[in-house]
Amino acid sequence: MQCEIITIGDEILIGQVIDTNSAWIAGQLNMNGIEVYQATSVHDDPEHIRVALRNAGERVDLVVLTGGLGPTKDDITKKVLCEFFQTSLVFHEPTFELIQQRFKNRNIPLNKLNRDQALVPEICTVLPNRAGTAPGMWFEKKDTIYISLPGVPFEMKQLMQQEVLPRLKSHHKIKAIYHKTILTQGIPESMLAERIEQWETSLPQHIKLAYLPNPMSVRLRLSATGNGGDTLKLQVDQEIEKLKLLIPEYIFGYDKETLAEVTGRLLLERKQSLAVAESCTGGFISHLITAVPGCSAWFKGSIIAYSNEVKQNILGVSAETLRQYGAVSEQVVREMVEGARKKLNAGFAVATTGIAGPTGGTEGKPVGTVWIAIASPNHTTAEKFVFGDIRERNIIRSGQTALQLLRRKIINENPTR
Amino acid sequence: MQCEIITIGDEILIGQVIDTNSAWIAGQLNMNGIEVYQATSVHDDPEHIRVALRNAGERVDLVVLTGGLGPTKDDITKKVLCEFFQTSLVFHEPTFELIQQRFKNRNIPLNKLNRDQALVPEICTVLPNRAGTAPGMWFEKKDTIYISLPGVPFEMKQLMQQEVLPRLKSHHKIKAIYHKTILTQGIPESMLAERIEQWETSLPQHIKLAYLPNPMSVRLRLSATGNGGDTLKLQVDQEIEKLKLLIPEYIFGYDKETLAEVTGRLLLERKQSLAVAESCTGGFISHLITAVPGCSAWFKGSIIAYSNEVKQNILGVSAETLRQYGAVSEQVVREMVEGARKKLNAGFAVATTGIAGPTGGTEGKPVGTVWIAIASPNHTTAEKFVFGDIRERNIIRSGQTALQLLRRKIINENPTR
Repeated sequence: MQCEIITIGDEILIGQVIDTNSAWIAGQLNMNGIEVYQATSVHDDPEHIRVALRNAGERVDLVVLTGGLGPTKDDITKKVLCEFFQTSLVFHEPTFELIQQRFKNRNIPLNKLNRDQALVPEICTVLPNRAGTAPGMWFEKKDTIYISLPGVPFEMKQLMQQEVLPRLKSHHKIKAIYHKTILTQGIPESMLAERIEQWETSLPQHIKLAYLPNPMSVRLRLSATGNGGDTLKLQVDQEIEKLKLLIPEYIFGYDKETLAEVTGRLLLERKQSLAVAESCTGGFISHLITAVPGCSAWFKGSIIAYSNEVKQNILGVSAETLRQYGAVSEQVVREMVEGARKKLNAGFAVATTGIAGPTGGTEGKPVGTVWIAIASPNHTTAEKFVFGDIRERNIIRSGQTALQLLRRKIINENPTR
Repeated sequence: MQCEIITIGDEILIGQVIDTNSAWIAGQLNMNGIEVYQATSVHDDPEHIRVALRNAGERVDLVVLTGGLGPTKDDITKKVLCEFFQTSLVFHEPTFELIQQRFKNRNIPLNKLNRDQALVPEICTVLPNRAGTAPGMWFEKKDTIYISLPGVPFEMKQLMQQEVLPRLKSHHKIKAIYHKTILTQGIPESMLAERIEQWETSLPQHIKLAYLPNPMSVRLRLSATGNGGDTLKLQVDQEIEKLKLLIPEYIFGYDKETLAEVTGRLLLERKQSLAVAESCTGGFISHLITAVPGCSAWFKGSIIAYSNEVKQNILGVSAETLRQYGAVSEQVVREMVEGARKKLNAGFAVATTGIAGPTGGTEGKPVGTVWIAIASPNHTTAEKFVFGDIRERNIIRSGQTALQLLRRKIINENPTR
């Protein structure tokens, strides 16, 4: 079964609203083995909607429309659907009762616009909306199913889960599909591609690989289609085992995990705690850490030592080291990380100092130069990186690199739990 | 001029990634008087991309494509473009030099995949990408312009702003349009709408208002169209003067300014400095501050006191206060802010302590309860807020609210420079 999603509404095409509905619907359909062929955003314009409906009907056997079902004048989807299916609006008593009930519960008087929401195209199957006033509608024409849903994400989601997906599952034979995303950090996309080329080429025909890079990490998604979900999962897991042997040091997690979350779990398992000293990353590492619910079980706190004064007075970096080597140096990052570990009384610590940019670079230390140190109960390591010349990126890369170095050090020094 | 946006990539159609590019591009084009007719998401499939290109070319005079330009096998846009424009790939020396420079700066060896990114269709105008390796490409066929951009939002945005929009503006007659965005913080969208309703209704016909809410702030964009850019600017500025009288306390800046940037400028003008103590915001305020280039001129540093131990040992919060009132209390936030001001030797300080969630709430202190304190050289104020129950949102709201309170305190205590 193949689907096309059509979102209706000017707000998306003037850039006022990001279309989150399409991705959500696509994710739900995919998990149920329905492939989404295309997603199209069109204006609140009858002719435009008609053309989109006609084109989609020629390409796929399932069309999901969202939007344009509100009570106001600019919502015209229902009228266009009537023309498209050569039917007319009729009053739907059960829908009207649902609407009345909603207004009664909220103690709001009903007006004509609300009453008109109970008008539906005669030939459709009405899908009751328990989260709002506009019902969903299910049409069949030739071999294609057309489903019209309200655009409000909350209402659309309820209708999809309670009405649309159960119906699709019971009415139609659906192919099994299984996805797993492998998260990597510390290797650029092109180097990664080179390193795993042979593995990629030898993947079975029914397992596809996609590269999904973002400033935080490069994600690799494996998607397997076929019969029997259990077998697919097994096959994908086998391929991941092979991949792990090729790039063991770069893989930090799977699917929706974050590097901070994974690192926190490692610390928790080892009953260890963490302190942070940040100069150039300026709080970003701490922000990544505290985005993880429950991090207080392993995270003590941080010193954001943006000025040399704070590096000296709070972290205990010596004035002499700062003078002799400069704030962006191996000597200073080592004193910072050890100061943080001691002052905040933690098992592990991580520290950064660098030139985030856009200014402040010199010949010997260009913008993007960053020193990162990791301290464990056993010893301290420091490493120099040269990232790019964009401040925002340098902060993100430094933060993620620091967490990745920390993760590896925890594993290397305490390989078993 | 009418545009169609085509986003290429399986990741959107399987629901793994939300397409934020289309809305951003649409917003930018709209601000420059170019209407977006349709946005279409298609698979990494040659035939599908070809059909989308052909259909778009028949409907509009500008087609913007994003995605599918990466170095890996699944990125096929360049090949399809060659077929569509009946041209072939040639090696583009300036692009190769840019790529080489990027790799050299980062001290990473270049491989064949990277080198291949310098191959471009012979007939296109290359748009140099200063944020990544895949160049943008500009084609003209009949009366339609086709622009192909990388899908990575950061790279796409740089190319749009530095290359595409200036070229569109100079090559094509575009109606005069003037935008100004007013940035507010601290008032929900619906209350804001109510408060400025009369002003909104009395706006001249050729000046449109758009509400652009996001978790950081509610932005109000005024767009004036007509002839003569100077007159339009004058008219918009007059409307803003009226608006300022209605909501003086909520407006913090304009257009691309951030609250941290504006606040930093106020401190700098007054030769003041800032220290931060964060508990529930966990580094987010510091991250907002250090996102501002040059902030070292006024920002000293922060203590992220996530554990009570750090609140006591580094900030000097008394054990007795913590025991008696709990970490989320007026007494503790006051001791935190004064500790930070003193320990970090700053003029002003801001502190937060609260329950970000999802767990940790109690009947008296539900999830979302946050205490924020501001200390100046003169005195300390503290205020309690109850935000929602979503961790991420609570952190963002607390951070922005803290900066807004700080901004107001700076102005109130030092009204003139």
